[in-house]
Amino acid sequence: MTAQPRQTAQPISREERATRAKTAFGHLESPQDALVLFDDQFIFYYCGFAFFPIERPVALVITREGERILFVPRLEREHAQQVSEAERVADYPEFPGQRHPLRQLADLLTELGLEKASIGVDHDGYPPVMGYDGPALSEALPGATVSRVSRALDHQMALKSPAEVELIRESARWGAYAHHLLQDYTRVGENETEVEARATKEATAAMIAALGDTYRGQNRWMSGAVALYRGQIGVHSALPHAMTTGATFQHGDTLVTGAGAAVWGYISELERTMFVGEASGEQQRFFQHMLNLQDIAFEAFKPGLTCAHVDEAVRAYYEREQLWDHWRHHVGHSLGQRIHESPFLDIGDSRPLEPGMVLSVEPGLYVPGLGGFRHSDTILITASGMELLTDYPRDLDSLTLPG
Amino acid sequence: MTAQPRQTAQPISREERATRAKTAFGHLESPQDALVLFDDQFIFYYCGFAFFPIERPVALVITREGERILFVPRLEREHAQQVSEAERVADYPEFPGQRHPLRQLADLLTELGLEKASIGVDHDGYPPVMGYDGPALSEALPGATVSRVSRALDHQMALKSPAEVELIRESARWGAYAHHLLQDYTRVGENETEVEARATKEATAAMIAALGDTYRGQNRWMSGAVALYRGQIGVHSALPHAMTTGATFQHGDTLVTGAGAAVWGYISELERTMFVGEASGEQQRFFQHMLNLQDIAFEAFKPGLTCAHVDEAVRAYYEREQLWDHWRHHVGHSLGQRIHESPFLDIGDSRPLEPGMVLSVEPGLYVPGLGGFRHSDTILITASGMELLTDYPRDLDSLTLPG
Repeated sequence: MTAQPRQTAQPISREERATRAKTAFGHLESPQDALVLFDDQFIFYYCGFAFFPIERPVALVITREGERILFVPRLEREHAQQVSEAERVADYPEFPGQRHPLRQLADLLTELGLEKASIGVDHDGYPPVMGYDGPALSEALPGATVSRVSRALDHQMALKSPAEVELIRESARWGAYAHHLLQDYTRVGENETEVEARATKEATAAMIAALGDTYRGQNRWMSGAVALYRGQIGVHSALPHAMTTGATFQHGDTLVTGAGAAVWGYISELERTMFVGEASGEQQRFFQHMLNLQDIAFEAFKPGLTCAHVDEAVRAYYEREQLWDHWRHHVGHSLGQRIHESPFLDIGDSRPLEPGMVLSVEPGLYVPGLGGFRHSDTILITASGMELLTDYPRDLDSLTLPG
Repeated sequence: MTAQPRQTAQPISREERATRAKTAFGHLESPQDALVLFDDQFIFYYCGFAFFPIERPVALVITREGERILFVPRLEREHAQQVSEAERVADYPEFPGQRHPLRQLADLLTELGLEKASIGVDHDGYPPVMGYDGPALSEALPGATVSRVSRALDHQMALKSPAEVELIRESARWGAYAHHLLQDYTRVGENETEVEARATKEATAAMIAALGDTYRGQNRWMSGAVALYRGQIGVHSALPHAMTTGATFQHGDTLVTGAGAAVWGYISELERTMFVGEASGEQQRFFQHMLNLQDIAFEAFKPGLTCAHVDEAVRAYYEREQLWDHWRHHVGHSLGQRIHESPFLDIGDSRPLEPGMVLSVEPGLYVPGLGGFRHSDTILITASGMELLTDYPRDLDSLTLPG
């Protein structure tokens, strides 16, 4: 049996979240008197309130002094008071309600002396969710100057602290553990859904046993420790975002996996290309090209270079080897709290790579009728280059299953 | 053992989706030359393309003639061609890419002769998802007149066709089946997570066996047939949106359940308040008030009245019985494809009730230290009143478990 990791991880401290709120203003391109954030991921990031967004608006106000006021519907009041780290919780009765929640948010901002302030927002009003309808914040508070600052806040979120990196490492350990189980249980004649369910259930149980009763996943995209195929089996693996098919594994299948774990809000990404039985010449050829592409990306992480640079380096290989027919997407994306974050390893993203950024590295090749070829690893940008946070074999032998 | 339902259900036909696209314009308050929709739920509704929204924009253009052009990233091209019912699929290389996808969407609209058109949108540009950043459509296509029409499209979506009602009925049957299993397996000393997993797994397997291999859930919020507590166990049930706690059932617990099933994109909602062992006097008192509240709502559905009317009728009971301390939310919401849709059974929603609307009816009472009291049923507005689509016992005896 695969050895189980034994580390534990601590949630982000109250101090760290409070500091995030205070220092957010330093990331902005132009000074703002306050921030008003509607996105559940920003709200969790700055005050620790994890919730699933529905049509009832939730907003977090952050003042220049770093005071956080969480604005929730009445039915979330007790929950918000218990769970959030905001200095104050304010509530409105209901949506749509007799007075629209955005009007009541404007009342709250007025009460805070922000009626004519410069306000940075992630979105001008609550975004459209499940039949929500309402005014823009700039309409509800016409005296204020409302500016979108989500790109600047994304940048703050992209620079991971040591505590965040530890949680992503912990996630990567359990993702690898789940992946080992997935690989062990995948055999000719077995069913995709059952193999995924078994690996995921066992890895999750092992993780909870190791991390203890206080463990929480707190992630919107992942729960527990998971390892999946998501339908990327045989010829279906040629579709990068295939849907689950409930397939039975067969000799000759190309497989593309995905694994990770949710640990106190943070996740990681591990994906591998595997083969059922010895790979054919064609399978081996594309596998080797894919390894070369990922190696090129790993070597391209040099301090001070841009995200675009990495994609350009990888694209040069597609060009040289005439692989464009098999190209479908850029090299990777940031991640951590969101399953995809910015910046992106994309020819169009001119943002510089900075120490503390955490990114997926996953250039792929897709061959209709044969399959998909993609490894994904999670890396940390360091002062001198990069460090792998995921730790799992990459070579053909290790990823060839009994046929 | 509980008898299993035996009906089957058919997916929405290509003709019905095509008709939706053509007739959408008739729902608008002011004439538009075209619609541009970014929301995954509208896109699925009008062209059958089910996908999970990420930072790469997807858009559906609908012309006045009802032609549908689906705009996707390169990596979704084959998937979109296979799955969607759009008359045409157009694609862009990647996000962010060298030319922003919204600029390329503007190019496509220009090519369609819509450069100076009146365009109805659900959101002015792709909404903020996972680090997406980009211009508004009105900025990318400055000659056009861009107006938000999502409220009108929500109204079209709220009026369910006979085929949609059939799918919701099928969902309700399997939700009830899963709930029967959940109730059967819930016993003192058993674990919440295990009981939920067992009921959900068995109900899902039975549903797939009955509906056949071609069955797909195609719903963003639910998969398979599910029955859950979501942590609403004992005193935790006093939080309407509690989180899973992995609790062990104990004598005296008040339980609040949730059940439903995903059938070809459609869902239903069934929730019940149950007790482990004979209910105490306090539990019985609040249970009876809750039944009275739901009965008042059922009787308030009269043709031509507004959504607000139902909430007002229920609120009068809270007032008369001095139950305001235990009020947390309005009476209910529309549903079908989305887990929550508009209109809402809320004092602030003046939209009229119309035949074909499908709504949850779920007034609740929340008593800190004791628990939550809420049944939820899914109903269809008919020409003469309402019809229950969920079919499950509501009375105290039926919902009292062995103690």
